[in-house]
Amino acid sequence: MLSALDLARRIEAGELTPRAVIDMCAEAIAAHEKDVRAFVVLDLDAARRVAEDARLVSLPLRGLPVAFKDIFDTIDLPTQYGSPIYVGNQPRADATAVALTRRAGGIVIGKTVTTEFASLVPSVTRNPHNLAHTPGGSSSGSCAAIAAGMVPVAFGSQTAGSVIRPAAFCGIAGFKPSYRLIPLIGVKAVSWHLDTGGIFTAGVADAAFVAAAVTGRDLRVDRATPPAPRVALVRTQLWNEASSAMQNALEAAARFAEAAGAKVTELKLPPILEQAYAAQYIIQDYENVHSLASEYDRHRDLIDPRLREALDNGAKISADEYDIARRTSSRGRQVLADTMADYDVILTPSAPGAAPLGLASTGNAMFNRLWTLMGAPCVNVPGMSDSGLPLGIQIVGRFGRDRAALEAALFLEGAIARNANA
Amino acid sequence: MLSALDLARRIEAGELTPRAVIDMCAEAIAAHEKDVRAFVVLDLDAARRVAEDARLVSLPLRGLPVAFKDIFDTIDLPTQYGSPIYVGNQPRADATAVALTRRAGGIVIGKTVTTEFASLVPSVTRNPHNLAHTPGGSSSGSCAAIAAGMVPVAFGSQTAGSVIRPAAFCGIAGFKPSYRLIPLIGVKAVSWHLDTGGIFTAGVADAAFVAAAVTGRDLRVDRATPPAPRVALVRTQLWNEASSAMQNALEAAARFAEAAGAKVTELKLPPILEQAYAAQYIIQDYENVHSLASEYDRHRDLIDPRLREALDNGAKISADEYDIARRTSSRGRQVLADTMADYDVILTPSAPGAAPLGLASTGNAMFNRLWTLMGAPCVNVPGMSDSGLPLGIQIVGRFGRDRAALEAALFLEGAIARNANA
Repeated sequence: MLSALDLARRIEAGELTPRAVIDMCAEAIAAHEKDVRAFVVLDLDAARRVAEDARLVSLPLRGLPVAFKDIFDTIDLPTQYGSPIYVGNQPRADATAVALTRRAGGIVIGKTVTTEFASLVPSVTRNPHNLAHTPGGSSSGSCAAIAAGMVPVAFGSQTAGSVIRPAAFCGIAGFKPSYRLIPLIGVKAVSWHLDTGGIFTAGVADAAFVAAAVTGRDLRVDRATPPAPRVALVRTQLWNEASSAMQNALEAAARFAEAAGAKVTELKLPPILEQAYAAQYIIQDYENVHSLASEYDRHRDLIDPRLREALDNGAKISADEYDIARRTSSRGRQVLADTMADYDVILTPSAPGAAPLGLASTGNAMFNRLWTLMGAPCVNVPGMSDSGLPLGIQIVGRFGRDRAALEAALFLEGAIARNANA
Repeated sequence: MLSALDLARRIEAGELTPRAVIDMCAEAIAAHEKDVRAFVVLDLDAARRVAEDARLVSLPLRGLPVAFKDIFDTIDLPTQYGSPIYVGNQPRADATAVALTRRAGGIVIGKTVTTEFASLVPSVTRNPHNLAHTPGGSSSGSCAAIAAGMVPVAFGSQTAGSVIRPAAFCGIAGFKPSYRLIPLIGVKAVSWHLDTGGIFTAGVADAAFVAAAVTGRDLRVDRATPPAPRVALVRTQLWNEASSAMQNALEAAARFAEAAGAKVTELKLPPILEQAYAAQYIIQDYENVHSLASEYDRHRDLIDPRLREALDNGAKISADEYDIARRTSSRGRQVLADTMADYDVILTPSAPGAAPLGLASTGNAMFNRLWTLMGAPCVNVPGMSDSGLPLGIQIVGRFGRDRAALEAALFLEGAIARNANA
């Protein structure tokens, strides 16, 4: 994989040019893209032309190539939302996250495969660790492209678990910041109370570096050793749904963190948060029906039957049920803030296990829904595995404390790496 | 003016056809549009073709014509955001509010003039009550079109005061529901924490009728006499900025409400809400810079210098200042909920006075900013005036209690009308 931070440092030091990094990507793409199928659109020639601009090297991202999930509008590349309804759709503006990335010195090299409208219907992308397995979704292409070393930085989004889960399945760092830390103007909506922009990179420090560059916030974690965090080990009510390999990996990760100096305490979540878990479905499904109202009314037959069925079911949710779910969510956020008062972060699975066999499903978001609803920053920490496939450990931080979440994730990443190498 | 509710009832009773209502609009447009300049695009022929569909009459909106502020995407009419950057821009989907309106049996007849990107730079629209005066903004065309009787229903949006203020200046009902009650998918963003969709009609019951039809919520208030509300009379710290006519009108409105049976109590807001007022500017300006990042980077010279300057100033706001403003806003919402525990609604001015002379400014949103930030439902109640120009009285409800706000507004509208006629 290509470390964004490492590449940026080498460009800054004059050891590498933005052009040379694009050539590295091109080489990996030539080797893997025909199998992995991570990209919908690629324009390496245009990227090389942009890379000629000498000013890029002095900007935070130093001319690094970046890929965007194909629900982020781009002014110079078509944006098709994974739907035949939008074939050839050419936006008139960049999404805000794309504009900020370019402003920070990133070069957009292509758009990555998304499930249809960032929803449940799987895409053509395969898991680089084993082509017979799903890469996860809905940010399928972004994660696979990072895992295959085809690009050092990619953006995606999460409404239920579409950042953390595919990052876990692909064995990469995935950062889903606090709700709305990354603006989603110009990004196709699924559910406005839940949709959250996210960043994929090789390692945790890379993701923090990119998040800092794009948002202008003090989020970098590579300049000092991260402090030992106070960790709440949360199995959740879904613990029995996790594979034994996942259960073992989480417990091992907790031990590694403890051995490295973290204070780890087992924590059982208050019942209101189990109710909030159920509320996430209601909010997502109700809002998705509204977000896709025009597509549903105008092009129903171009929507996959599985999504159409989900929309038809969502249409049965009443405004009252939705309002109750919203209130449950608000109360849950307050309770979670209180519950986490004595902890820096929660340690919990990123997914029920490794990437499932087959491409018929992108896997289950059960270990992600609650945290998306809570708006909490989440990081997938890579480094564990099950029979050659990656397993993801999830760090969940407190709302608005993204830097602390990233520091704890970096701390855990180091602890895992030391043990894996021991 | 054309009452949506009255027209819908007459269509339902078979006394009128959707086609005949379009012809009524066409007549008013022929008489007034050349002076008022409310529309960017009109397609009455297409509307007449849609009106042939006999099924419309059985739908909630009964085939009523509807106009949308030109920041709502429409699949069959260009959407230009009041900016030369978007001349000829043809969206590939309807905004959700447009799709829901059509689904409810509304016929889209045209797009109304907005200030540039729904921001501060005035438009060409004139106030139908006096063409030398501004109609207010940013929903200028929607309000002027209602006031001139050119359409019975129009949509707009408010980030600071762009629903309530122009409704006040134009002497019509304006309903800014609770934050996010009307989905804004497919609407050009100013500020994602503030932007709120709104509805304009002749009277309060009309607005409630349309809101109910489009959202599927129980918001109609025309089926029973509204209960007498418990009213908090709130002058705010900006009271001295209001014209004496406005001050007198508010006090008269309070007396009329009391005489009609309402319990009216003077209320001074807690200091945190004055801080929240200041926070609104920071959130709006910081987010607007992000929303227009692509336009700023690609087409700076096509942005009006006044907006450019506002964006340049917004770019100086740090993420820390913004985060503090957001926290102030959250605390303010809690305090406001506590403060309003014993009241159904707040009674306060809709604007500092009547529509200012001239078209160089759309007037001041000072009496609206706090309530937008609080996400509270607001209604402009028409019926008062100052030397022939309308004055607006604002009803502010509790978040999520939109029906109670509409009922209180209807109660007040009736009390004012009885006194004005007395």
